[in-house]
Amino acid sequence: MRRRVSIWAVSVVSACRACDEAGSVSTSYAPPVQRLVTELSKLPGVGSRTAQRLAFHILRSSGEDASALAQAIVEVKEKIGLCEVCFNLTDETRCRICQDARRDQGLVCVVEEPSDVIPMERTHEYHGVYHVLGGALSPIDGVDPEDLKMAELFARVSASEAGVREVVLATNPTTTGEATALYIAQELRERAPEVKVTRLASGLPVGSDLEYADEVTLGKAFAGRRAV
Amino acid sequence: MRRRVSIWAVSVVSACRACDEAGSVSTSYAPPVQRLVTELSKLPGVGSRTAQRLAFHILRSSGEDASALAQAIVEVKEKIGLCEVCFNLTDETRCRICQDARRDQGLVCVVEEPSDVIPMERTHEYHGVYHVLGGALSPIDGVDPEDLKMAELFARVSASEAGVREVVLATNPTTTGEATALYIAQELRERAPEVKVTRLASGLPVGSDLEYADEVTLGKAFAGRRAV
Repeated sequence: MRRRVSIWAVSVVSACRACDEAGSVSTSYAPPVQRLVTELSKLPGVGSRTAQRLAFHILRSSGEDASALAQAIVEVKEKIGLCEVCFNLTDETRCRICQDARRDQGLVCVVEEPSDVIPMERTHEYHGVYHVLGGALSPIDGVDPEDLKMAELFARVSASEAGVREVVLATNPTTTGEATALYIAQELRERAPEVKVTRLASGLPVGSDLEYADEVTLGKAFAGRRAV
Repeated sequence: MRRRVSIWAVSVVSACRACDEAGSVSTSYAPPVQRLVTELSKLPGVGSRTAQRLAFHILRSSGEDASALAQAIVEVKEKIGLCEVCFNLTDETRCRICQDARRDQGLVCVVEEPSDVIPMERTHEYHGVYHVLGGALSPIDGVDPEDLKMAELFARVSASEAGVREVVLATNPTTTGEATALYIAQELRERAPEVKVTRLASGLPVGSDLEYADEVTLGKAFAGRRAV
């Protein structure tokens, strides 16, 4: 009986999805509304239902709010480019962090994406500068060193006037992120042997429970244990 | 021990939120990015983290995609108005449903919001027309009959040329929706006693389980039982 009920539930849901996708909904929306729903549903994590909810919110909201949003989208594409030094996002030639004289220019933190700079900044522990690669090495997806800001990193670290003492590899602790970190470490050992190359520690997240830690993380935490 | 861990976890999370809200993030974003994040986080269900993810997606996406989204937002606010007959959203003077000669003009379905028309249309069971109130009666929130399209509904139903035979009250099965339905039913009994007034059935949703039904829904389902 339980089983029959759950099959029912599934079939009901898929019928609704079929409706959605067959575009039967679109016949009852006015074309500009449908266009907005389509554009909104291209955003990550926004399905057709969420896109409808957002569209109706925009329709209900004031004209100023809607045009502020549209304006912000246009402006961000027009004004934002990459910093000439670290390739972080900026609306000037150099980003604020590279411009900041209080930051330690001898310490370079290498991250994959501009969005990775924010969590590092949030720690309030890091006072060096950044180098944004624009991705991670992934031969399967056709991402080779030439597709990333690798040459720029090596040139920056090797340049004597920069005086880089340490490169912190803060790529993600994933297969591609680890491969990228390894590649950079090897290259830097050859090109700039006097520069210290470090990697963010892997281990248990603060506030977590040993019981729920996966074996790879726990293994890393054990291998990286420190004297107290 | 468990308790201590969970307190830890909570404090870590709230520390992060405090960071977010104190605007320490904003110091590291370029102003146009920050403006986009702020505008996006005004959308319903979009917090500051989601807004950041969406903003970075827009930054990564092509210029055409971003301008299509901005354009769709501007266009929807410029072109979309309310249908002069049923107050549904439309880009013409009358909505597509009111224009459709195959729809039964003698059957009027009263809903709260334009978004409520879509689920009714999805059933493919309804072939009449609509009347969108623009909300539900709620004296606590200061929503009185004058704030809704009530007078327009009564005029429409009473008009002899319309030939309305039945009004289906499809306001939400909530306190305010029920109050609105009751009010309309009373008014229509006085103003147009020859018109049949009906209400959507309340009962068990299809595919659900009696075991998990709340007592009010089950009570309604019992009261509305039908001969088979």
